[in-house]
Amino acid sequence: MEHELKEIIRKCDLAIKQEDFDFLMNYYTEDAVLVVKPGMVANGKAEIKKAFIAIAAYFKNSIEPKQGEMMILEAGDTALVLSQTLLASNKEETTYSMERKATYVFRKNTEGEWLCAIDNSYGTELIGIDKI
Amino acid sequence: MEHELKEIIRKCDLAIKQEDFDFLMNYYTEDAVLVVKPGMVANGKAEIKKAFIAIAAYFKNSIEPKQGEMMILEAGDTALVLSQTLLASNKEETTYSMERKATYVFRKNTEGEWLCAIDNSYGTELIGIDKI
Repeated sequence: MEHELKEIIRKCDLAIKQEDFDFLMNYYTEDAVLVVKPGMVANGKAEIKKAFIAIAAYFKNSIEPKQGEMMILEAGDTALVLSQTLLASNKEETTYSMERKATYVFRKNTEGEWLCAIDNSYGTELIGIDKI
Repeated sequence: MEHELKEIIRKCDLAIKQEDFDFLMNYYTEDAVLVVKPGMVANGKAEIKKAFIAIAAYFKNSIEPKQGEMMILEAGDTALVLSQTLLASNKEETTYSMERKATYVFRKNTEGEWLCAIDNSYGTELIGIDKI
């Protein structure tokens, strides 16, 4: 059976494509962290929403994220998702990688809903020799 | 100021070197997950302790983990640690990488102590083209 987190991440990807950021924020914890780009982090829903608006504009309002191979490591109410994240857009992008190995940390709340606590599409590229 | 998780991870690395796995288990959640190797996961403290004993034997009881560059992403009581993990041992190792980009997820318990919930030293190598 497909892990329920896959469906949630698909909904988030669609919300990003459709720029429905209010809907998207339903899937983040209040104190969530988003790595906007290497060296820049957004903290909390308000900052994260603003960052997504800026990211959408940067990609000429044409960004479409999709997930490739995915692996989910689950420990009780905490899950680490490792995922090939493929970004498509009309912008000719040279600064940021459009094919990433993302690390997403989800937490299950008291209602049993998975919410994203840490959204780091750059994965381990943030450290060491692969630094971008 | 150094993040308190760095000191905790140093203590864990020393416990692994000294094969003090009872002490090491103080730093894991009850339902923690350890990626033993690609395709093999240990669930819960009892399995994780057994896995560490097997890993120590595999490396001829000479393993010494150290962390290089580290980045910590923190969202309330949840933290994702991205870390260059360097493994030294007397064994000539060819199967597994001895220099990894690890992903560790820590949770703060009600006493304010950080405990490891997901221990994945292979990082995003578990997916996609870097698969080992």
